[in-house]
Amino acid sequence: MKKITLEKAASLLLSHDKFKILTHIYPDGDCLGCGYALAFALRKLGKQANVAVEGALPSKFGYLAEHYEEQDFTPEYIVSVDVAAPSLLGESVMQGVDHIDLCIDHHGTNTITADYIYVDSSAAAAAESIWQLLPLLHVEMDEDIAAAIYTGISTDTGCFCYSNTTSRTHHIAAGVMPFCDWNKINYINFVVKTRAKLKLERMILDTMSYYYDGKCAVIYTTLDMCEKLGTGDDEMEGLASIPRQIEGVQMGITMREKAGGVFKISVRTNDGVDASAFCKLFGGGGHPAAAGCSVEGDLETVRDKLVTAAGDFLR
Amino acid sequence: MKKITLEKAASLLLSHDKFKILTHIYPDGDCLGCGYALAFALRKLGKQANVAVEGALPSKFGYLAEHYEEQDFTPEYIVSVDVAAPSLLGESVMQGVDHIDLCIDHHGTNTITADYIYVDSSAAAAAESIWQLLPLLHVEMDEDIAAAIYTGISTDTGCFCYSNTTSRTHHIAAGVMPFCDWNKINYINFVVKTRAKLKLERMILDTMSYYYDGKCAVIYTTLDMCEKLGTGDDEMEGLASIPRQIEGVQMGITMREKAGGVFKISVRTNDGVDASAFCKLFGGGGHPAAAGCSVEGDLETVRDKLVTAAGDFLR
Repeated sequence: MKKITLEKAASLLLSHDKFKILTHIYPDGDCLGCGYALAFALRKLGKQANVAVEGALPSKFGYLAEHYEEQDFTPEYIVSVDVAAPSLLGESVMQGVDHIDLCIDHHGTNTITADYIYVDSSAAAAAESIWQLLPLLHVEMDEDIAAAIYTGISTDTGCFCYSNTTSRTHHIAAGVMPFCDWNKINYINFVVKTRAKLKLERMILDTMSYYYDGKCAVIYTTLDMCEKLGTGDDEMEGLASIPRQIEGVQMGITMREKAGGVFKISVRTNDGVDASAFCKLFGGGGHPAAAGCSVEGDLETVRDKLVTAAGDFLR
Repeated sequence: MKKITLEKAASLLLSHDKFKILTHIYPDGDCLGCGYALAFALRKLGKQANVAVEGALPSKFGYLAEHYEEQDFTPEYIVSVDVAAPSLLGESVMQGVDHIDLCIDHHGTNTITADYIYVDSSAAAAAESIWQLLPLLHVEMDEDIAAAIYTGISTDTGCFCYSNTTSRTHHIAAGVMPFCDWNKINYINFVVKTRAKLKLERMILDTMSYYYDGKCAVIYTTLDMCEKLGTGDDEMEGLASIPRQIEGVQMGITMREKAGGVFKISVRTNDGVDASAFCKLFGGGGHPAAAGCSVEGDLETVRDKLVTAAGDFLR
């Protein structure tokens, strides 16, 4: 295990030829953006590279793979991108993988075991590091790479709105925009919603409850609600941002019931409240203002646990 | 009336000393950002400059004027910023003004009468032109100017999401972010909402109606609704973006009842549908993807008029 510079990461990539790139479970715009951008870059160098995605590529991200076809080869170099912890590596992604050669990430809490590790926790998205890699690999920007990088940086910053955004994030956006249909990407990721999602939002607003003089707000979805509306995981995106928007709320908690008696918890915070430290109490983690965990139990039990912990935490 | 370059605009500003800067009615982040950025810049040059705002400065934009105090002088040079048409100049703003010397704007449809006109319709926000003016005026960036410019470019692009955003917009963001508390500005303009606004959103979702196979969606607020919830103009912001978000919607229309039997109409479009041309049918105007107008009548009459026109327009 060795922490390395991005220059070293580039030279490791340049000195190998057959890559498998690992993304995390519940794949999001950043891990997919990193995966496809890196794969396209390596392929431009005449190398072979596949992106391993747990489950199917979410349909909304189909545009990332428009010019991508799985290649048939036996990988000799394994790279994980935007994966913060071993538990986030899905079963099918890890098939045939016995160790990770190189880990590229931006989570300060990274716990991946790999031969070489590059973590830039100042990067709003891991895709920023992939963007920085390109000149080191002597790869020129093109439409596919630009779309993937733009997807990574825009989705991990809520379209350049979250506190993790930096001048560098904007510089990268300015640089990749001329190469890709960023407006279509914004529409897909930040604008369009199905009528079912709109109904779900309406329903979830009715579940909002406030605690501790409104410093903590909690919303939830249940399997029943989703079944009734016919909504799936796609419709769940963005719901986590709702409770922290309310005036006075420092910690917004979103609870999503999953099969098997477990709730997936998303925490979003304001005013410097550490979402990552809070989620760590429940075995989760993430970023200072956006983190997650899983808690077992029924709705009332899980909510009570979270709210009680939030009370201690906000004091 | 003479169209001029930005260099000429700078030399006009440099050769005068007592400025009144005019902003438009229903002042938004861009006209206010332009106004305060330009006033701060001119004051740094030892000149006198006041920003004329119709009504009180909206409280959410109070941060723009944190280091601003009205100066006592008789203006000799009148500059309008981000004002697209004479009808958008409010009564109190125009007090003592008999003609406009210089107009700086980014609306391609600009109809202001002024001695000199600078309109850059490629600018996402008029604040982009103010930012470009700074080096021509030999004014260095500071916190106040940066906050005002950031406010202009971020609010006019929906935080860098709308189709009017360009690489230049991102370049400017990257440049001003180190000087100001852009995260606070984002929180104020794009994140926080009152509980009353949340209730209003819930209520407005119930008013959604679809037409023409879902290509057109309409929502509305009435004076009754707002009175019931205790919401004012502040809570109305952002509502206009709701209907165009729905999958398949090409034209999203938001109707807001105002006192005196008139509805203020906001139109947001996708797929290249020209919102500005549509609003022109009702004596309004704006940008290709975001425009507005006013229509007199009761709810049903106004909606019928708009929906009928939309049907012709979408065909």
